[in-house]
Order: sequence, then structure tokens, then C-alpha cells
Amino acid sequence: MTLPATRRVGIADVAALAGVSLGTASKALNGRGTLREETRARVRAAAEELGFTPSAVARSLLTGRTFTVGIITTDSYGRFSIPMTRGVEDSLGVGEMIAFLCDSRDDPIREQHHLRKLLERQVDGIIVAGRRTDAREPLADNLQVPVVYAFGRSRDPHDCSVVSDERGAAHLAIEHLVKTGRRRIAHITGPQSHESARERAAGAASSLAAFELELVGEPLFGSWTEAWGRFAVAQVLRTAPDVDGVFCGNDVIARGVLDGLREAGVSLPMRAGVVGIDNWGVVAEAARPPLTTVDLGLEEVGHRAGDLLLAAIDGHPTPGVHVVPSHLVVRES
Amino acid sequence: MTLPATRRVGIADVAALAGVSLGTASKALNGRGTLREETRARVRAAAEELGFTPSAVARSLLTGRTFTVGIITTDSYGRFSIPMTRGVEDSLGVGEMIAFLCDSRDDPIREQHHLRKLLERQVDGIIVAGRRTDAREPLADNLQVPVVYAFGRSRDPHDCSVVSDERGAAHLAIEHLVKTGRRRIAHITGPQSHESARERAAGAASSLAAFELELVGEPLFGSWTEAWGRFAVAQVLRTAPDVDGVFCGNDVIARGVLDGLREAGVSLPMRAGVVGIDNWGVVAEAARPPLTTVDLGLEEVGHRAGDLLLAAIDGHPTPGVHVVPSHLVVRES
Repeated sequence: MTLPATRRVGIADVAALAGVSLGTASKALNGRGTLREETRARVRAAAEELGFTPSAVARSLLTGRTFTVGIITTDSYGRFSIPMTRGVEDSLGVGEMIAFLCDSRDDPIREQHHLRKLLERQVDGIIVAGRRTDAREPLADNLQVPVVYAFGRSRDPHDCSVVSDERGAAHLAIEHLVKTGRRRIAHITGPQSHESARERAAGAASSLAAFELELVGEPLFGSWTEAWGRFAVAQVLRTAPDVDGVFCGNDVIARGVLDGLREAGVSLPMRAGVVGIDNWGVVAEAARPPLTTVDLGLEEVGHRAGDLLLAAIDGHPTPGVHVVPSHLVVRES
Repeated sequence: MTLPATRRVGIADVAALAGVSLGTASKALNGRGTLREETRARVRAAAEELGFTPSAVARSLLTGRTFTVGIITTDSYGRFSIPMTRGVEDSLGVGEMIAFLCDSRDDPIREQHHLRKLLERQVDGIIVAGRRTDAREPLADNLQVPVVYAFGRSRDPHDCSVVSDERGAAHLAIEHLVKTGRRRIAHITGPQSHESARERAAGAASSLAAFELELVGEPLFGSWTEAWGRFAVAQVLRTAPDVDGVFCGNDVIARGVLDGLREAGVSLPMRAGVVGIDNWGVVAEAARPPLTTVDLGLEEVGHRAGDLLLAAIDGHPTPGVHVVPSHLVVRES
């Protein structure tokens, strides 16, 4: 594998080969100043011959742009930021941009430190990728660069945020359960302090109401763990042994629910259907049976955030909350 | 939260406030040229008052360094690159460096594209974070920037690579099983085409030999999945019903093995002990019982790679393969 020797060829080499001064070479390559066309052509030919590309540093001084953006994640490059970052990268790659990735680890001091480093490097824009859907404080007041919030929206409605459709996801899950014949549906989910848990529960209730149905019992708020899923479904079986569907707040809970049902002798998916949210491959595919779940479109959230950031950098900001639709992934549960 | 208006204050503002020319302001701030001490002090006071920081772009032109590095991952920001990237960031953060993160998605064309973008931006160095331990081709010939390979080493022994201790990890697992009284130990692992599967199996055999023991049967090579773990352990129980320990090639397999044993009526951990490799929280903690496993020290691999890269950037390269020790994490299995 050979590599164009980009770094070793400087404008001085170009000037020497063309037999002109450094200043003339610079003018010729930047298309500035007054030069004879013959001189300009000679310099360009020399640049071509040497494979000279102006450095990104030099280019940014000329254009006032660095063609870099910062991505500040809060979840330590975790399972939410992974697909989002992929989406952002796909979007930015088209525009020859490149991203600094900073991990704030949910620590406001680290976040401000990263912000300072990004601004020092004159990034053209910043994406803030959240781990929770709860609205967050804006990154800072009076920022001079465009910012797009992904997954977790900004509290300031004048900011630009891209989020997943929490209620729509709940609707897809309930609709699937009802359409596959389930009528006695319970809801087991994460902590009530999480907006996503509350929104999904509200979405489930209104979706069931549209089918003239009601949840079996109250939504069971707990934690985003398998152990909670196993424990909670045992309670459900005790109070409502005829339950025939469980909508789970995420895939991890759903996996616990599946294990709990199977180990209680409930045959799956014949006697009960289970649907999760996340479409987290490692969990959903390893579940027994493999889990039907709702994909929140995180990669699309990242992609859209990248697109909106590029537009804002080009002078076309689109403030407000942009919602990316979810979609159902049917497996065997 | 207010932010220093870094981007709005330019050297021109500093010059105007100090009542000097742009050139004088620049000389004063760079500590260059001959100026009266009084002038220098006035410019510095003006800069202080305005909160002026020289831009990173300008600084890089002065120092010849950009204080940026590139991280090229091959696993789409997956579970291997996550802890490694954390470690790299911890290492670099100390030196006020910042990282571009590029995802090659195991595609050589994407990798070369990213490399070109990184070189255009004159990164001070590059870390290549692999997903597999198998040796890989060097990034390119005659690169003018230092490169450190993390987790997956370079085929070229003159390159600098930081890897985890595969055989050491197997040794820790076997030692734990033997010291907790297991004597009839089987090994269920991933595909034989993966170097890590072969190394771990070899490590297990030599470690057992040191205890004057042998594996129960041949190592069972398969895939890195729960389903394989469940299936393979059923075979083991058929041919060696007195098996009392299973060393698994990774945590995912181990989780399948635990489920398979439990569902076959083997009481855990009384009748059989199970040890995995990875210490992947989401799998190891959700396993029943929670999984004892070997942590390959990926965060430390990243940290060490960052340190070695910084040293190389400072002119102190350390070619060769650097091995980071593993450690046992005892849970209940």
C-alpha cells in the first residue's frame, strides 16, 4: 500500500519547481492577486506534478472554516451514541467533514472543558448526543457556532433538536400486540423518573384506548434490567394469570420478561406475546424466542442531526424539535 | 452558564485596545521580535482584558503541531472500541490533545479515505483500534506520523502495537477453576479462524498442564454466541456428565453455557463453575448466576496506546508489541 506523500510536499517545493517566489506560488494557488496567466498555469502544473494539496490548516485560514465538527456524547460511547455517531459520520462524510469525538461522561465540568477545546479549534459546529430523552440545559449561552442536540433535546425551543418518537414507538408495539390477537396486555418498564419511561407508558395507554382496550393493571415502573423484568412479570402472572401480552419499556427488560414467562411454564409465543423497545441486536437476537421490538431509528437521528448541522453551518438553521419515526422489527416473540 | 466569547475576540481587537498595529500585537503575544517591554505589557494587558486566546489554528502554524490525533476504529464504535477509546481519551486529555474518531467499518477503502482526511488535517499521530486480535497489515508505508495499533497488532514488528494478554487471560480463568476445586474442565469457544480463540485454547491447555490436568475432550470451536454455548454444553454433558467446570472463550458463550447447564438441572455454582472472558458488563452481570470472567483491560490498552503515541509524537517511539495484563473479576458463577 503506498500513500500520496501529502505531508512532505509543501508550497515551497511547488514554488521551487515552478521557478517562482513563495508569494507568487501562494497567489497562483489561491487564485488571488494579479499574475500573468502563464505564471499561474506554471505553478498549477508544478502543484499537479508534485501532488500538492494545500493543508487543511492553510485552507481553513483562507475559507474561515475548518471542516470539522465536534460531537459531545454523554454516554461514554455507549449503545445510544454508537448508532447515532455512525449516522452523523455518514452525513458529514459526504461534505468532507470530520468529527472530534468528546465524551462528557455526564459531567458538566468535563462538558465545558470539551466545549472550550472544540471552540479553540474553531469547529464549524457541534452535535450534542444525549443518553436520555429528558430535555437538557443548552450547552452554553450565546454560542457562535451552530449546535444540534440529538436524542436528548435542548430545553430551549429555539435550539435545534432531533429526537426519536417515544409515543409513536409505544403505539407500534401496542398495535403489533393487538393485531396478533393479544387483549390482556401489561406494561413493564424503567424508572418513572425517566421521561422516556413516562412517555412510553402514556403512549401505550392512548394507543390501547384507540383500540377500546386498557392495560392490565397499572404500568409497572422499575429499572431497565433483566432482573426487574423477571421479577415484575412474576407479579403480573400472580394478579392476572390470563395476561397474553407484555409491552416492555426496553429490550433488556423484555429479555427478563421472556425468561420469566418461559420459566413459569407459559409457552411462547403461543400463550403470550412480548414486544420491547430498542432493537439492540445483542439482546434482541439472543432472547428466547428472538425478540420483536421497536427500533427508535438512532442511526437516522444521528444522520438527520448531521444534515441539520451542515445546513446550519451553511447559514440555514432549522430551530425546533425534529422527530424521527420508529419502526417495528418483527422477530419471534 | 456563560461562555468566554473566545471566537469573537480577535487579535485586531487586542491591537485596537492596546493602541498598536496588528504586527506589533502579534509580535508581543508570540514573544517574538524586538519590542519595548512597556508595549509588550500593554498588549498583554489588553489581551487579558478581552479574554483573548490565540486560535488553535494560529497556534498550530507557530508550533508545527495541531494537538490532534486520529483514532481509526474497525468495529463501528462497538464494544471493543468503546473502552479503548475511553482509555485513549484519558491519556490524551492530559496533554490537551483532542481526537478525530473515524470508523473504517472493516473496509480498506474507507480506511484509506479516513487516513487521507487525517493527514490533510495534519494530525500529530494516529491510533488504529482493532476489533480482532489477529495481526493486520500496517496502515500504509512510509507514514510521516507516528501510529500505534491497539488490540489488533500490526504485522510489521517495527510498528508499535498494544495488545491484551490472551494466554494470560486463559491462565487466569483455568487457575480460578482449579483453585475452586474443579478438575473436569471443558473449553467452549469461538471460531478456530480467530487468533484469539486459538490463543485462549492454547493458553488453557498449557495452564491445565501446569496443574497436571487435561481438558475434558477437545476444545469446542464454534461461534461467539449464546446459542452455541447452550448447544455445545449439551454435547459436553452427554459425553462427560461429570464435567465440573467450563472455561468459555467469551462472556456471551458463557451466558449460553450457564443457561444450558441450569436448564439441564445442573445446580450452579455448586456442581459446576463457569468462567468467561471479556467482563462485558451487560452480559456478565445479567447472567444467572452473575458471571466470573477475565477482564482483558481494554481501557488500559487504550490508555497505554495513547501514552505511547504521545511519547512517539515527542520523538520517543517504542516499537514492538506491548502486552497489557488481564485480571480476573470474580462474581458468582
